[in-house]
Amino acid sequence: MVPHLTTALTGPLLELESRFLDHATEIEQWMRVQWRDHAPPFYASTDLRNSGFKLAPVDLNLFPGGFNNLNEVFMPLCVQAAQTAVERICADARNLLLIPENHTRNQFYLQNVAQLVAILSLAGLNVRLGSLLPEITEPTVIELDNGAKLTLEPLERRGSRLGVAGFDPCAILLNNDLSAGIPDVLRGLDEQWLIPPLHAGWHVRRKSQHAAAYDRVAREFADVIGIDPWRINPEFRTCGEINFQERTGEECLATQVDALLTRIRAKYKEYGVDETPFVVVKADAGTYGMGVMTVKDASEVVGLNRRQRNKMSVIKEGMQVQEVIIQEGVHTFETLENAVAEPVVYMMDHYVVGGFYRVHTERGRDENLNAPGMHFEPLAFDTFCSLPDLGQAPDAPPNRFYAYGVVARLALLAASVEIEETEPAEADLAD
Amino acid sequence: MVPHLTTALTGPLLELESRFLDHATEIEQWMRVQWRDHAPPFYASTDLRNSGFKLAPVDLNLFPGGFNNLNEVFMPLCVQAAQTAVERICADARNLLLIPENHTRNQFYLQNVAQLVAILSLAGLNVRLGSLLPEITEPTVIELDNGAKLTLEPLERRGSRLGVAGFDPCAILLNNDLSAGIPDVLRGLDEQWLIPPLHAGWHVRRKSQHAAAYDRVAREFADVIGIDPWRINPEFRTCGEINFQERTGEECLATQVDALLTRIRAKYKEYGVDETPFVVVKADAGTYGMGVMTVKDASEVVGLNRRQRNKMSVIKEGMQVQEVIIQEGVHTFETLENAVAEPVVYMMDHYVVGGFYRVHTERGRDENLNAPGMHFEPLAFDTFCSLPDLGQAPDAPPNRFYAYGVVARLALLAASVEIEETEPAEADLAD
Repeated sequence: MVPHLTTALTGPLLELESRFLDHATEIEQWMRVQWRDHAPPFYASTDLRNSGFKLAPVDLNLFPGGFNNLNEVFMPLCVQAAQTAVERICADARNLLLIPENHTRNQFYLQNVAQLVAILSLAGLNVRLGSLLPEITEPTVIELDNGAKLTLEPLERRGSRLGVAGFDPCAILLNNDLSAGIPDVLRGLDEQWLIPPLHAGWHVRRKSQHAAAYDRVAREFADVIGIDPWRINPEFRTCGEINFQERTGEECLATQVDALLTRIRAKYKEYGVDETPFVVVKADAGTYGMGVMTVKDASEVVGLNRRQRNKMSVIKEGMQVQEVIIQEGVHTFETLENAVAEPVVYMMDHYVVGGFYRVHTERGRDENLNAPGMHFEPLAFDTFCSLPDLGQAPDAPPNRFYAYGVVARLALLAASVEIEETEPAEADLAD
Repeated sequence: MVPHLTTALTGPLLELESRFLDHATEIEQWMRVQWRDHAPPFYASTDLRNSGFKLAPVDLNLFPGGFNNLNEVFMPLCVQAAQTAVERICADARNLLLIPENHTRNQFYLQNVAQLVAILSLAGLNVRLGSLLPEITEPTVIELDNGAKLTLEPLERRGSRLGVAGFDPCAILLNNDLSAGIPDVLRGLDEQWLIPPLHAGWHVRRKSQHAAAYDRVAREFADVIGIDPWRINPEFRTCGEINFQERTGEECLATQVDALLTRIRAKYKEYGVDETPFVVVKADAGTYGMGVMTVKDASEVVGLNRRQRNKMSVIKEGMQVQEVIIQEGVHTFETLENAVAEPVVYMMDHYVVGGFYRVHTERGRDENLNAPGMHFEPLAFDTFCSLPDLGQAPDAPPNRFYAYGVVARLALLAASVEIEETEPAEADLAD
């Protein structure tokens, strides 16, 4: 079951997917050289939007949840890619400590953790789960709805090494995005591999740094296959300090929103797109779809009411929004039985290992689909992303999924560049 | 559809597969370290025999045909593994020349070539086919039964580089086992990657060198998981010069056959195996099931009749048998609808990427299944080899296929060691 792409503009879309198809070999060659020069993250997921005239990533997650949503037929790809990822870190690796998010009741998240444990075990690692939760003071077994069990254990710091009781890992894999900052227990672990590195956590990471890296990657790639980079690149602007509660910075925000909307209008005109441009204002540091606002006119960001200001001010773990990114909105024109379907692509090392659609089933007419806590049903990709088929139409499933995989890998590459460029001097992390 | 293992001795089998299951993580760790120390071949296939009390490789092919027989759901694994293999050779690789066997009418083989071209193209290579056949003097299109087309082109040697018209590859992949010796056109290609290296061809390669390397690999591995290496290792003996036509060397052969049969009898007694031991006498250099004789008593190799001598004397490309290997026979107790089913496992780089059963459907009561040109139907593995499942019985399909994958990788590792050890001094190949 593959969502239907409902857009009047199949022309430009087929042209974009045709370009990917016609240049598939060149694309893979170009990718190969990029991965020679840039170390891929251990794992990542990216949210794509497909408007028919534009196929672009809108977010890249370096602490991916949702591995439980992948088609089980992709499992061997995950294991094979995880083996490569582990070899890249350390061929001698035996013990790995996985630090999950602090959700002990979210069954969906816990099933993701169980799936990650399964993948890493099959790749030849002894895996234990260390929890950052202070209430985990002894090994705690959590039973999952699907019958599986997870054991969360209290972290044990021994000098410059971190582990759990009787378990000294050579690598620590974070599945916790550190939105609340770096816990002391994770600092100064010089002898162990910390994956991803601490500066990839949301306490340091900025969407705008990723967007800037993606902008460069997209331009270089677009040049290789001869397309307008705009077709795969959501443009963006940033504002400096903004305090929604105190209403400082509103003017800068309005100016940038207006400038970006003007730019999008010009591109829509160039491509004959008859849609209403919009931008998305997001916290520059943050995740979980909180602190996100869809804007179609600059006037909307001036004089926000209390509810709107509260919404934009607080993101995960109660952090205050201070910097925002204004990102070009990309319409979602993929639907499944009238519900919007948005692809999420999963990668391990530099391989695409699967994905799923977030199918936003409407719960009520008055509900904003972009609201926090929005409900979606995962629909696993039933087709691989690495098998484009020139014998089929450019929008046939293998070819559409190939296009997803290409754009997802561009976002992954941008993340590699971003992590390289934001690597702090050693002294900065030692504090 | 998975063949049934019919043996009265499920005890030892389940014990062997249980060992693999219980030590799966350790096995993957051990493998990872081996592949750090040994470069895997680009690709290979291995024939396994499963007698219930013994699971062992009996042949390792460094020029695998049969990629067309794999389950199409394994295709992404092949592509991902091929990407790794290409990165290992040269990240800059763009053009690859594939040199197939000289079969222009064997549809099965040609479909294998077409499948290899597809895999390598999806991995990001421009692939062209260069033929060693003298009659290919211009690009020749061959239509396959499945509608695909292949273009065979004459090789063009330009100084120290080999290619086809207008195509200068950086790598040359042999799918031709060089049984007839090294063609001059392949000598001295110092600037290009030749895969596998020339000394892996059957003009140089000896089964006994592989068996010796496998013997060491199997012993080391058996020690890691605490099993008797005999459970995975077909023992072997060799004889020096033998001329079947002139009946020289028969006595040595009889002595070695007897010694090996005596050894097998002792092991059968140790394990309570109530089967008749047998050995297989094969040409030490050779392939294609020619020059193979099954022997249950040393007297059978003395005083061979003309037909038998002829059979043992000529292998592929008309080469004369001079050296033989005497290999412990491993009974095949896997059957599918009363036909014997033998697993063949495929690997690219150090990954298992699929496999199939050779199902020997009986064409007539009087027909010897081991005869040259024997008929088989391929039955693709419908289960992956990398997903052992502790929640299922040791002989459940995922676990049996995992065992296949482990033993196949041991044979692959032995091939790596063998290729390292037999690498000639540069001067030797320059002639």
